[in-house]
Amino acid sequence: MRIGFIGLGIMGKPMAKNLLKAGYDVTVNSASPAAPELLSAGARGADLPELGRTCDLVMTMVPNGPQVKAVMLGGTGVAASMRPGSTFIDMSSIDPTDSREIAGELEARGVEMLDAPVSGGEPKAVEGTLAFMVGGKAEVFRRCEPVLKAMGSSVVHCGAVGAGNTAKLANQIIVACNIQALAEALTLAERAGADPEVVFRAIRGGLAGSAVMEAKAPMMLSGRDQPGFKVDLHIKDLDNALSCGRAAGTPLPMTEAARGVLQWLHESGFGQDDHSSMIKYYRGLAGLQPPEQSAERP
Amino acid sequence: MRIGFIGLGIMGKPMAKNLLKAGYDVTVNSASPAAPELLSAGARGADLPELGRTCDLVMTMVPNGPQVKAVMLGGTGVAASMRPGSTFIDMSSIDPTDSREIAGELEARGVEMLDAPVSGGEPKAVEGTLAFMVGGKAEVFRRCEPVLKAMGSSVVHCGAVGAGNTAKLANQIIVACNIQALAEALTLAERAGADPEVVFRAIRGGLAGSAVMEAKAPMMLSGRDQPGFKVDLHIKDLDNALSCGRAAGTPLPMTEAARGVLQWLHESGFGQDDHSSMIKYYRGLAGLQPPEQSAERP
Repeated sequence: MRIGFIGLGIMGKPMAKNLLKAGYDVTVNSASPAAPELLSAGARGADLPELGRTCDLVMTMVPNGPQVKAVMLGGTGVAASMRPGSTFIDMSSIDPTDSREIAGELEARGVEMLDAPVSGGEPKAVEGTLAFMVGGKAEVFRRCEPVLKAMGSSVVHCGAVGAGNTAKLANQIIVACNIQALAEALTLAERAGADPEVVFRAIRGGLAGSAVMEAKAPMMLSGRDQPGFKVDLHIKDLDNALSCGRAAGTPLPMTEAARGVLQWLHESGFGQDDHSSMIKYYRGLAGLQPPEQSAERP
Repeated sequence: MRIGFIGLGIMGKPMAKNLLKAGYDVTVNSASPAAPELLSAGARGADLPELGRTCDLVMTMVPNGPQVKAVMLGGTGVAASMRPGSTFIDMSSIDPTDSREIAGELEARGVEMLDAPVSGGEPKAVEGTLAFMVGGKAEVFRRCEPVLKAMGSSVVHCGAVGAGNTAKLANQIIVACNIQALAEALTLAERAGADPEVVFRAIRGGLAGSAVMEAKAPMMLSGRDQPGFKVDLHIKDLDNALSCGRAAGTPLPMTEAARGVLQWLHESGFGQDDHSSMIKYYRGLAGLQPPEQSAERP
């Protein structure tokens, strides 16, 4: 099986390398700035039409739905050159409505599709321990599962096309809101005269405990704001969630609130900082100074 | 040391029993409906003035700040009969501003105070595995720690008087908002065509994972709504948080939003159900029917 991999960014590059390490025959877009690094790791290079024509499985890892559509669809898109019976896996985090639209266009050409967004970020992309949430037909999932397992430690089939991105949006809603709740609570604790570090230790083991609390409370308390996961990327995910919610007839008031705080961070120049920077919004609201370490960041 | 224990409700009764089991000399209010059960377990009975006069340590476990003030303060309150040098521990979950006010009045009489709210609910009160968040002077904390350890597995000193309740409010804010975020995300998942049970399994191990998700997602998905922790009690806690936030100059927009959803549940007759009933609000918003099991509840 020959795999074409499109989107050699912070996530895509290590993911493609893990496919090569697992012994897959990988073709990358020779016009990509990262192509030379992949070629020297054993990949083939091709232009996009040739990649589409020669590969049995095409995978994309790009920023958002419009980029997936731009690279895949239309007269000059990769789909136009793909053979009937080949497969497309989009690993980008996009609006599931877009996933279904793309799958519909590919189906008309005899190309099957999975949507398979990941969670875990760059470190887990490098380690090959990403978590894949996958939507698509069960038999297509079974056929492609070994490829995804070469890049991830968890690969879960969530339902029909779009279900992978729906699960990812649920994940991103919960992460954003849990971060905001943590920021709100720690700010109240500090302003009400308690030591927020001690409060964190007192409550982490109970019902308030969470992966977000373990990962983000220490960053909030020390003023560290290196991503992690960038504010601007979380804005993109929540916009997809809100768009998906409107299409599905589901109001999302907490997601709207979290989106507003992230927008404030973006406008204030914190778009490239970790999403735990939500604490800055609350400290500002409450008239608190940033923790000392914030002043030292480059 | 003789301990006076006031407030033999769902939580207080098993807590007082655990003090007796640990060998403490416990006096209860003989007018309490639960007094006979405690007397047969080895407690002494007394009226409140005698309890105040004869005990070295008085403890309360009552619903809220006004009840603590009513039983302790004023001409007929227990504090009026307590000896200088004795100690008061309030284990109720109340506004920390009230804790500091009560401590101020007791200090004028030479009585030291700790605020020591708990988390864990009735099962952990029975097991003696509650988590205590404690505010007050360090030397008073050290003196009283063994008494609290007879009722809890975690006893954390959070700072000056009021810091225990501040930590508890931070805990309750995070729990309420994490439940609401979970409800919002699972409802979107279902309405967008994914199986919310599968989405839960796909995301529980990642950054969205939390104690709330582990405890409440299965309840939300099955329609089980037996407490757990009642909506009406969580309303009380969030009202204390909002009042504390106003006193501390800290806006709490997410807490306000969660308070609104809990109010809807209260008005809709769900005040005695578990706080995971927040999913009912979202399912209503999204035009979804309750899960089947809901129809069967007594």
